[in-house]
Amino acid sequence: MDTVGLWTVFGSEVLGTGILILLGVGVVANVALPKTFGNGGGWIVIIFGWGLAVFAGVFAGATSGAHINPAVTVGLLVSGTDTYAPGVAVTAAATFTYFAGQLVGAFLGAVIAYLAYYGHYNDPEAAGTQLGTFATGPATGTVKDNVVTEVVGTFVLVYIILRFGDTPSQLGPLAVALLVVGIGASLGGPTGYAINPARDLGPRLAHAVLPIRGKGGSNWGYAWVPIVGPLVGAVLAGGLSHVSL
Amino acid sequence: MDTVGLWTVFGSEVLGTGILILLGVGVVANVALPKTFGNGGGWIVIIFGWGLAVFAGVFAGATSGAHINPAVTVGLLVSGTDTYAPGVAVTAAATFTYFAGQLVGAFLGAVIAYLAYYGHYNDPEAAGTQLGTFATGPATGTVKDNVVTEVVGTFVLVYIILRFGDTPSQLGPLAVALLVVGIGASLGGPTGYAINPARDLGPRLAHAVLPIRGKGGSNWGYAWVPIVGPLVGAVLAGGLSHVSL
Amino acid sequence: MDTVGLWTVFGSEVLGTGILILLGVGVVANVALPKTFGNGGGWIVIIFGWGLAVFAGVFAGATSGAHINPAVTVGLLVSGTDTYAPGVAVTAAATFTYFAGQLVGAFLGAVIAYLAYYGHYNDPEAAGTQLGTFATGPATGTVKDNVVTEVVGTFVLVYIILRFGDTPSQLGPLAVALLVVGIGASLGGPTGYAINPARDLGPRLAHAVLPIRGKGGSNWGYAWVPIVGPLVGAVLAGGLSHVSL
Amino acid sequence: MDTVGLWTVFGSEVLGTGILILLGVGVVANVALPKTFGNGGGWIVIIFGWGLAVFAGVFAGATSGAHINPAVTVGLLVSGTDTYAPGVAVTAAATFTYFAGQLVGAFLGAVIAYLAYYGHYNDPEAAGTQLGTFATGPATGTVKDNVVTEVVGTFVLVYIILRFGDTPSQLGPLAVALLVVGIGASLGGPTGYAINPARDLGPRLAHAVLPIRGKGGSNWGYAWVPIVGPLVGAVLAGGLSHVSL
Repeated sequence: MDTVGLWTVFGSEVLGTGILILLGVGVVANVALPKTFGNGGGWIVIIFGWGLAVFAGVFAGATSGAHINPAVTVGLLVSGTDTYAPGVAVTAAATFTYFAGQLVGAFLGAVIAYLAYYGHYNDPEAAGTQLGTFATGPATGTVKDNVVTEVVGTFVLVYIILRFGDTPSQLGPLAVALLVVGIGASLGGPTGYAINPARDLGPRLAHAVLPIRGKGGSNWGYAWVPIVGPLVGAVLAGGLSHVSL
Repeated sequence: MDTVGLWTVFGSEVLGTGILILLGVGVVANVALPKTFGNGGGWIVIIFGWGLAVFAGVFAGATSGAHINPAVTVGLLVSGTDTYAPGVAVTAAATFTYFAGQLVGAFLGAVIAYLAYYGHYNDPEAAGTQLGTFATGPATGTVKDNVVTEVVGTFVLVYIILRFGDTPSQLGPLAVALLVVGIGASLGGPTGYAINPARDLGPRLAHAVLPIRGKGGSNWGYAWVPIVGPLVGAVLAGGLSHVSL
Repeated sequence: MDTVGLWTVFGSEVLGTGILILLGVGVVANVALPKTFGNGGGWIVIIFGWGLAVFAGVFAGATSGAHINPAVTVGLLVSGTDTYAPGVAVTAAATFTYFAGQLVGAFLGAVIAYLAYYGHYNDPEAAGTQLGTFATGPATGTVKDNVVTEVVGTFVLVYIILRFGDTPSQLGPLAVALLVVGIGASLGGPTGYAINPARDLGPRLAHAVLPIRGKGGSNWGYAWVPIVGPLVGAVLAGGLSHVSL
Repeated sequence: MDTVGLWTVFGSEVLGTGILILLGVGVVANVALPKTFGNGGGWIVIIFGWGLAVFAGVFAGATSGAHINPAVTVGLLVSGTDTYAPGVAVTAAATFTYFAGQLVGAFLGAVIAYLAYYGHYNDPEAAGTQLGTFATGPATGTVKDNVVTEVVGTFVLVYIILRFGDTPSQLGPLAVALLVVGIGASLGGPTGYAINPARDLGPRLAHAVLPIRGKGGSNWGYAWVPIVGPLVGAVLAGGLSHVSL
């Protein structure tokens, strides 16, 4: 296996995470913004939209193993693997390259989603409802409750990804996509399932920067929850993977 | 094939059934509790949520063959197989190890689902509606009707699983997941399709034990139906598998 | 390849078509009868329910090649194949064995679906709405319109099945299931997509025979449409398969 | 590999695109026309209907590689490939043969969809609502906004198709189908996601020609948007495929 350079890893993660967030922010925009054809499509459209966003993102980021989520990178690191992808050794530089690509990709993906829904984001009737299409937030509950929810959801995501090798199948990217559909169905109710720090932080930065008509604040007070919760969940998943089960 | 020890079988079934019930109880909580993002998502979210809960659970419990359901264990036993999974011989001790792991896993999965939806379970507006997210119950009909429904649903589940080997495919866990989606769509209407004694008993125990705000009773009078019905269905499926068709 | 006897073919088609119709009648009962948990689940539940009914039925009827639909048998006959399944030569006796197994299986599957929804079928509020869960019927339009719709839907079903060999994949039964989901989504609107003479005639016979509380007539005047339309569509598909494309 | 003649390519693309548009126009008719069984089925039915229309179309057009979309042909051309499909060299004549087959197939598919929904298209209550089942149009926004949306959606479609080879799986036509479901969920909201010039122009021509009761105009002023946007997106995708990521 040839070595994959870190600039290639960076580009691959930008592209993979960019596609993920373009389609992920897009599906929420489609369901939530008032004049789209998908308005009112419901939770089933949201969960398949995000799951298939992962599906497409995994193909786009295949060269770097398509982590497209810092929690996956952390889970692999804690699991003790030697390589992040074929040809990519686990090093501190590689780890930060993944993180950087993921955050840049998430930001750019959200910007392109904004352009794809430009008329809808800037429609007067959408004023104030845009943030929910970019970033996650709690339906109710205390901050502690929401951290726990993100820990649990990300634990399931990362642990099952680490177990995929135990039941070989030809499903490939579809397996990850279906796992994300399932987590959205089952654990997305309280916090909108970030389960990925870049998925929340990148689009939240885009919301803060973009000149969206009538937008409100970017709710930075909540921004640490979908970073800390997923990272804790990833550490737990990586740790449990050391137990032979 | 190396022998798999019974403690490993126990742990594997705890983990697999735990993931199954975490995601399964979670999806009902998401759709039924009044303030979640998935509230009102409808039956399509329920059936994909449970199907993909099986999908994830099968990966998590792969080491023990991922029965994650006493009805599957019973069906295999009646079918006359020699092994419950690669390296696990069919013995009385193994059979009870599977049952114990499944029940413990189901209980723990429900507890973690409760934690993931903590703020929603303890919301005043949810008072009295929590039981339906843990345990199954009848929509209408006599007890005999409901037993028949559970027999039929579990028969389909276990018999088709026993037939998977006849049409080899690379679908693996996806095939079981889709089968469960289909049973939910088609046979879930009268009883909420336990089709798995541990799926009902474990979360019902959790409901009885957990300090949920404003919860009602745990309806123990119905609890035998989703145990007896599935076991009868599993015996029928295992028996029919002896007929060459 | 060993020869498969015609009694085995008969039993295999009974079982496969039985599972198909049990789950297919079941999903319509779940969505249409007023007190089920799936009531109001909508067209998306219907089309996935029927698609996954095919999925399960194909595993159950694998020994005979799982035609589970006289239109598939006719399509294969017209295509000029030598065998209906590995070990089953194309003969007049085999053709009628397939038809007989399919009709008997469809009747029995509908009876078992009735038992699984017994309390719901006999609920006073369901009086008069039961026929639609057993047999198909037109939403509107003339008889000629409805025949055309069934011809087109069945043509797509049978022709694509005959083409599966051109793009080998490991999807197996899933490919047929998804095809049926798609036909339901796209061509099910005018007639409820029988696209299978046994699927309509078997359950219609069951409706006529079963002692369902408050049931109306079985609409035998329409019963020829979902027989003739699918058979014409199957002949066209089998004929087109002779053109190399 | 034997050479595939251009008449065969033409026929294969007519058939593949014909099935695609028959099922695609069909699903919108089912959801939008007022008296169908699928009326009101929502965006989830639309996106699975179109995705599985691609699934069936890919099998039908397998001989020519099942482009069934001029944007795919253009993307392959710009990517620098030598062959459009096994046995089909990239030449100007081949390129126009693909385009011609796609347009003719799309027109014929829409005509057959019209016949399958004949009674529904000519129902008095459908007057004026038929165009939306044939051709795409904007939900809101300026023309420039809508062109951008089609560029983005088609870019994702064509780029991910070009990347499928990087993560080999046995999904085959299912991978394309799921990609289209995802694009519909996420990027279909503003313009109804033509992402295929033939998908819009062929049915629009059919709408203009067919004697539909009470039909309005065919909105030719918008017709260039779903041609130009997808072609630009395809060129960008083909160009990016030259970058090793």
